[in-house]
Amino acid sequence: MGIDPGSRITGYGIVDMDGSRSRHVASGCIQTASNRPLPERLKTIFEELTAVIQSWKPTEVAIEQVFMHRNPDSALKLGQARGAALCAVVLTGLPLSEYAPRAIKQAVAGTGAADKTQVQRMVSLLLSLSEPPSADAADALAVALCHGHTRQTLHRLGPAALLAGRRR
Amino acid sequence: MGIDPGSRITGYGIVDMDGSRSRHVASGCIQTASNRPLPERLKTIFEELTAVIQSWKPTEVAIEQVFMHRNPDSALKLGQARGAALCAVVLTGLPLSEYAPRAIKQAVAGTGAADKTQVQRMVSLLLSLSEPPSADAADALAVALCHGHTRQTLHRLGPAALLAGRRR
Repeated sequence: MGIDPGSRITGYGIVDMDGSRSRHVASGCIQTASNRPLPERLKTIFEELTAVIQSWKPTEVAIEQVFMHRNPDSALKLGQARGAALCAVVLTGLPLSEYAPRAIKQAVAGTGAADKTQVQRMVSLLLSLSEPPSADAADALAVALCHGHTRQTLHRLGPAALLAGRRR
Repeated sequence: MGIDPGSRITGYGIVDMDGSRSRHVASGCIQTASNRPLPERLKTIFEELTAVIQSWKPTEVAIEQVFMHRNPDSALKLGQARGAALCAVVLTGLPLSEYAPRAIKQAVAGTGAADKTQVQRMVSLLLSLSEPPSADAADALAVALCHGHTRQTLHRLGPAALLAGRRR
């Protein structure tokens, strides 16, 4: 399962990896109304992500790493949403990995410089979706696919590499 | 109960308000080791705050409002810790209020420009503590006292004022 947290929209995407083949299981967005108080919005993110995990029972979760943000105000907002999403995951006890944005784009689009539209198109193609997912769901599916591919490679390298490659 | 969230240390303080009299019930700090992975640290904040709420059963919770931060990187870190702390509170269903830093300092030290040491000393004095609490516990107790005093005033003004004064 991949998660793309945001203060307004948190995307999630679940894929089933069978060898090098990947299948789309579920994806969607958790939207929070910007006119609602912050605690209520964080509660929505936490509770809906917990519900998604409980219904689809993913075995591993991956999330995009956040680097230096330009705007302190949006960094705080993203941080709060990310904190709520991470809480939902860690309380389930599922293994959690983080990937750099460039690594995610590289994994699905072949280049770390791919834009949102390219990621959306490639995720659609890789998972043979009849219509492209929303941008946030696509980003989450890209994180899931990146984790799936990395895991495949690391599994081939053996369990020690898997452990070293997993950043909790 | 007042909470002062931080990425390394989250302070908490519980006071009992009886009319205009305030009594110290409990206070302390939740420390997270900076060399541990972020999800684990957020889990610690969430679980320990939940445990504090369960043992002391406060009836209302207050937290400091965060304004524009200078540094985006520390804003993200603070945001994540604050997100975890807010999740712990909202899941208990307790009413949550936010207060501006200046309002908190004003409430305990009589001036919005008070520094950390003044807040620590005044909290000690107001609660007749035999020794001053740590800076983070003192900040959390100051938030609790600010909420207690504001609540008192608003209660005298009637329930409509209480509702208007409470920022969720």
